[in-house]
Amino acid sequence: MSRTVDILIAGGTVVTMDGQDTKFESGALAVDGDTIIAVGRNVEIRKDFKGRETIDASNSIIMPGLVNSHTHAAMTCFRGIADDMELMDWLNRYIFPAEAGHVNPELAYWGSLLACAEMIKSGTTTFSDMYIFEQETARAAKQAGMRCLIGEVLFDFPSPNFKTPEEGLAYTEKLAQTWADDPLVNIMVEPHALYTCSLDLLKGSKILADRYQIPLATHFLENKSEAKQLEDKYGGRATTFLMENGFLDERFIAFHGVLMDEEDMRIFSDHGCKVVHNPESNMKLASGVAPVSAMRKQGIVVGLGTDGCASNNDLDMFQEMDTAAKLGKAALLDPTVMSARTVLRMATCDGAKVLGLDALTGTLEVGKKADICIVDMDKPHLTPLYDEYSHLVYTVGGADVETVLINGKLVMKNRRLLTIDEGEAMRRVRIIALGVKKSLGNGF
Amino acid sequence: MSRTVDILIAGGTVVTMDGQDTKFESGALAVDGDTIIAVGRNVEIRKDFKGRETIDASNSIIMPGLVNSHTHAAMTCFRGIADDMELMDWLNRYIFPAEAGHVNPELAYWGSLLACAEMIKSGTTTFSDMYIFEQETARAAKQAGMRCLIGEVLFDFPSPNFKTPEEGLAYTEKLAQTWADDPLVNIMVEPHALYTCSLDLLKGSKILADRYQIPLATHFLENKSEAKQLEDKYGGRATTFLMENGFLDERFIAFHGVLMDEEDMRIFSDHGCKVVHNPESNMKLASGVAPVSAMRKQGIVVGLGTDGCASNNDLDMFQEMDTAAKLGKAALLDPTVMSARTVLRMATCDGAKVLGLDALTGTLEVGKKADICIVDMDKPHLTPLYDEYSHLVYTVGGADVETVLINGKLVMKNRRLLTIDEGEAMRRVRIIALGVKKSLGNGF
Repeated sequence: MSRTVDILIAGGTVVTMDGQDTKFESGALAVDGDTIIAVGRNVEIRKDFKGRETIDASNSIIMPGLVNSHTHAAMTCFRGIADDMELMDWLNRYIFPAEAGHVNPELAYWGSLLACAEMIKSGTTTFSDMYIFEQETARAAKQAGMRCLIGEVLFDFPSPNFKTPEEGLAYTEKLAQTWADDPLVNIMVEPHALYTCSLDLLKGSKILADRYQIPLATHFLENKSEAKQLEDKYGGRATTFLMENGFLDERFIAFHGVLMDEEDMRIFSDHGCKVVHNPESNMKLASGVAPVSAMRKQGIVVGLGTDGCASNNDLDMFQEMDTAAKLGKAALLDPTVMSARTVLRMATCDGAKVLGLDALTGTLEVGKKADICIVDMDKPHLTPLYDEYSHLVYTVGGADVETVLINGKLVMKNRRLLTIDEGEAMRRVRIIALGVKKSLGNGF
Repeated sequence: MSRTVDILIAGGTVVTMDGQDTKFESGALAVDGDTIIAVGRNVEIRKDFKGRETIDASNSIIMPGLVNSHTHAAMTCFRGIADDMELMDWLNRYIFPAEAGHVNPELAYWGSLLACAEMIKSGTTTFSDMYIFEQETARAAKQAGMRCLIGEVLFDFPSPNFKTPEEGLAYTEKLAQTWADDPLVNIMVEPHALYTCSLDLLKGSKILADRYQIPLATHFLENKSEAKQLEDKYGGRATTFLMENGFLDERFIAFHGVLMDEEDMRIFSDHGCKVVHNPESNMKLASGVAPVSAMRKQGIVVGLGTDGCASNNDLDMFQEMDTAAKLGKAALLDPTVMSARTVLRMATCDGAKVLGLDALTGTLEVGKKADICIVDMDKPHLTPLYDEYSHLVYTVGGADVETVLINGKLVMKNRRLLTIDEGEAMRRVRIIALGVKKSLGNGF
C-alpha cells in the first residue's frame, strides 16, 4: 500500500548535500505538510508514496534551497544608485542621504518584498537580513513564505526607526517576542559594527541575544581602514576585545571578516563563532578577499551572502557561488581550493549552520523542512552534464531555477511566483526610486 | 512621407556605445537590409520610418550585440568535465585525452553550434574562436547567422586535424580563401602560444596573416609558469622576441596577457597591438589577474572574452562583464577602476576594434551592420533602474536577453532561436559527451 502525501517531486537528480554527498540520479522526494518524509530513488519512492500533487522534475536537479547568509533586503530600492566610487564618496554622497531621506516602513516593506521575489526566482529559500524597520521585512518574508533570520541594525546614532540605542534594543526585543513561535521568521540581534557601536550597546545586544538564545551578528573587519580604526580604538586586536568582553560563542556571526588573520581565526574557531563570506560585495567595494580556505581549515563554519543590492548589485546566490569559487582560487593562485562542492556547502548546509537553522534547512534529508529548489537543466548553456556540483556552481544562474518550495509550500512553479504579485512590488519600488532620484538631484 | 524599412525597433532606451556615450530614452532604431539606417528618439524615428516588422522594445534596453573576443566554441562538449585541479592534472588527465580521442569534424560542428545557441541566448553577436576543424565552426556560425573571426589552432605537434604545422598553415590558408567574401565569417591565423610553436611556425603564420591582411592571434603570458618558460626559452623578454622578429603590429592580438609588465605594455602600445582579457578563466585556473587598467592607460585596446567552456564554464558575456569590473577593483583595491562604462566598452566597441571588425559592429550607429541585443528590464532583479550602464554590467544576466539581430537578421525573438534547432544541438552534444565519459572511465 502506498501512502498519500501532499507533494511528490520525481524524476530528476536529487543532490541532497547531506554529510555523505548522497546523490540520487532519477531520484524522488516526498513532502507531507512542511516536512521531507522520504528521499531516494524514483522507482522506490513512487512505490511507497502517492502525491496529491506530483511535480515532474525530469531533466532537472532537485537541491536544497539556497541560504543567503547576509543581505540588506530593502536596499533593492537603491540597486545601482551609484557604483565605481570610493567608499566614503559612495556612502556620503549617495547611500546615507538616500537612506536618511527615504527609508521608512513603506520602503522597508516593498523593498524587502521585491528582494523576496528576486531571491525566490533565483533559488534562495532562507535569508539573513540586517536593516531598518525589520518588522516590515518580517512581514514581507511572511507574505513571500520565505524562511529568514533578521534583525534591526543598531548603532550609537539615531536611525530613521529609533532615536537612541536603547530604543533600537527595545525594538529588537519586541521583534523577538512578536515572532517567537513563527515557523518561518527568526530574529537575531544586530549591532551594525564595532566602529559604530559603543561597548554599552554591544553589551546590551549580548544580554538580549542570551536572554532569547538567538544569534548576535555584526559587520566585522570588512576592510583595511576599519581594521586600522579598530586597532586604534582598542589599542590592540578587535577579536581579543570581543573575546575578553564575553561576546564570542557559537551564536556569534561575523559578516565579511576580510581582514581576519590566523590568530583571529584561532580565537573564532576556539569559540565556535561563524563567518559569512560576501565575495561580490568585497570585490565591488575593493575591500579585499576574505581568507575563506584558511578559515575552513581552522574549522570555522563559513556561509555565503550577497550583501545588499547597493554593493553587488543583485541577490543571485548562484552567481555568488561562481564568484566565491573563482575568487578563492585567484587570491591564492591555487585552482584546487574552494571547490564546487565546498562552495555549494557554504550556500546550503553550512549557511544553515551559520544561522543556527540547520535542524530545519540546508539539506534534503528526512525530517528536515521542505525547502527545495528545482533547476531546469535542459538548456544549451547547461549541456552537456558531466557533474552536477560543477554545473550548480559554475554554470547555473538564478534564471534556471524553475520551481521552489519553502516549508513544504510551493512559492514558485514554472517561474511563476505564487505568493508575491511581482508586478505590484516592482511598481511600488519604482515609485520609491523616483522620489530618491529627484531628491539626489543632478546626475539623475 | 515616411520611408519603409525592414525592421523598426521602438520604445526602449537605446544605449549606442558610440564615442559620446549617446543614449536615447524612449528611443528607436531603423534597420534596412543588414544595416542600421537611423537611430534616435522614438517620436522622430517613427515619423520618418515605417517598419515591415516592428519590434516593441518598451521596458527594454536596446544595445549593441556583445563581442566575445576569445573562446574555443566547440569545447562546450567538455563543459565542466573537470574542475578545481592543478592545470597540468587538468590538461593531462582530462582535456588532452578527451581531445585526442574525440575531437573530429562532427564534435567541432555540433559543439560550435551549441555554443552559438548559448551565445545568442546571452546577447553575443560576434565571437572570436580558436580550435580544431574550424571549417566546421565556420559552418556552424553561418548556420546560426553569427558574426565571427576564427582560426585553426596551430602548434608544432600533430593535431586531430593535421600532421604537420605546414598542413595546419595550408588549412588556415584554405579557410581564408573559402570565406574571403563572406559577410559574417572572417578568418585569422592562430598559432597556439609561444611555448608550443617554433619560430618557423610563427614566421609562417605571420607571412599568411600579412598575405591576407588578417589578424595574427595567440595565447600570451597567461600565467607565471608560461612566463618563466618563455624567459628561459628566449633568454629574455618574450615581447622583445616578438618585436624583433616583426610580429607586432596593429593586427597582433594577445589572449590573456596576465603577466604583462609596464615594458611589455609600452611595446604593445607602440605597435598598436591588442589584448583580450578573460577574467573568469584566469580566476578558475588561478592564472592571476591581467593588468587591464594599466593596459588601457597605456592606450592598448582591450577586449573581453569568456575563454572556452572547459575553464569558465559558460559563454555568458554579461557575467563576464560583472566579473571583469569586480576583479579589476579587487586586484587593485580601488573601487574606481574598471567602471561599468569601461567594461561595457570592452565587451562592445573595443572588442570590435580588437578583432578589426569595428567598421561593421560594436556600436549602434548609422551605417554599421545591425548587430543588436534587446534586454528585457521588466524583472524584479532589474528593478528599479537608476543607470543603464550599471545594470548592464552588474545586474543583467544572459537570460534577460529577449531578442537578437545579427547583420540585420532576427536570430532570436522572445527567447526563441530562429536559426538553430537547440533541441537537436543539445541531443547531439549529449551523445558526444556520453562517448567522452565512457572513454575517460572511472570518476564518471
